[in-house]
Amino acid sequence: MIGAMARIATLVAVALLLAASAALAAAGEREEANKKAVVEFYDKALNQKDFEAAAPYFGSRYVQHNPNAPDGIDGFKAFLGFLREKFPQSRSEIKRVLADGDYVILHVHAVRTPGERGSAIVDVFKLENGKIVEHWDVVQPIPEKSANGNGMF
Amino acid sequence: MIGAMARIATLVAVALLLAASAALAAAGEREEANKKAVVEFYDKALNQKDFEAAAPYFGSRYVQHNPNAPDGIDGFKAFLGFLREKFPQSRSEIKRVLADGDYVILHVHAVRTPGERGSAIVDVFKLENGKIVEHWDVVQPIPEKSANGNGMF
Repeated sequence: MIGAMARIATLVAVALLLAASAALAAAGEREEANKKAVVEFYDKALNQKDFEAAAPYFGSRYVQHNPNAPDGIDGFKAFLGFLREKFPQSRSEIKRVLADGDYVILHVHAVRTPGERGSAIVDVFKLENGKIVEHWDVVQPIPEKSANGNGMF
Repeated sequence: MIGAMARIATLVAVALLLAASAALAAAGEREEANKKAVVEFYDKALNQKDFEAAAPYFGSRYVQHNPNAPDGIDGFKAFLGFLREKFPQSRSEIKRVLADGDYVILHVHAVRTPGERGSAIVDVFKLENGKIVEHWDVVQPIPEKSANGNGMF
């Protein structure tokens, strides 16, 4: 009797442990999948400037916080059109990819015209069910001189 | 014999599961501890402008990537002196705290003089053993007008 109860208790403990472990692992896997989705989206959008290739990464909406870009998925399409026309050679190089829950953070060096110093950018994307639904960024032109020798990245 | 082997196999499996679960949980706890340390540091440094109170959060070094700030812990001390003298009423309001491994990301609204629109900032801190050792940021003045009504935060 005691042996059977101990066996049941062990099984319950193992089941709980499995569930907790699976939940933690799933959270880590979701963050990795979100990172992959955002990095792919970023290259297709900002570098290839291919709206059709980038569009499948959007969820049902795209809330835009960049003050220079119009809201929504249509606003982003218009922004890519502007980039294609005015800065066809612009390049965005991702220096760092971080994720926390539904958020993915990119630290980026963006150059609109080849050879210029360009800008340091941090983009923050929010995802829902693996799809991009919201975006914030902060953009700073890289100055000619620095008070330290470490660079901005 | 088979019963004993099955029991040993179960014990090994439970031990491995416990170890994996503990490692995942510890990673999550470390990120939470890092977030707490950086938020406390940020308030003591940027708002209270109290170098002595902020200093214990530094590790053995402070690699500075903000191009306007001199390198190192001494450089940061000088920067706080500048803030205290020139912008004693400056305030940095943390809007969002994210963490990934040893990195903590803050999305901040900073105002140097009360009433001004201020700047949007993303700070990225790297920690080692719970102490701050490196810092990057990107700073953008909030423009008067926006192409969308969503604000920068």
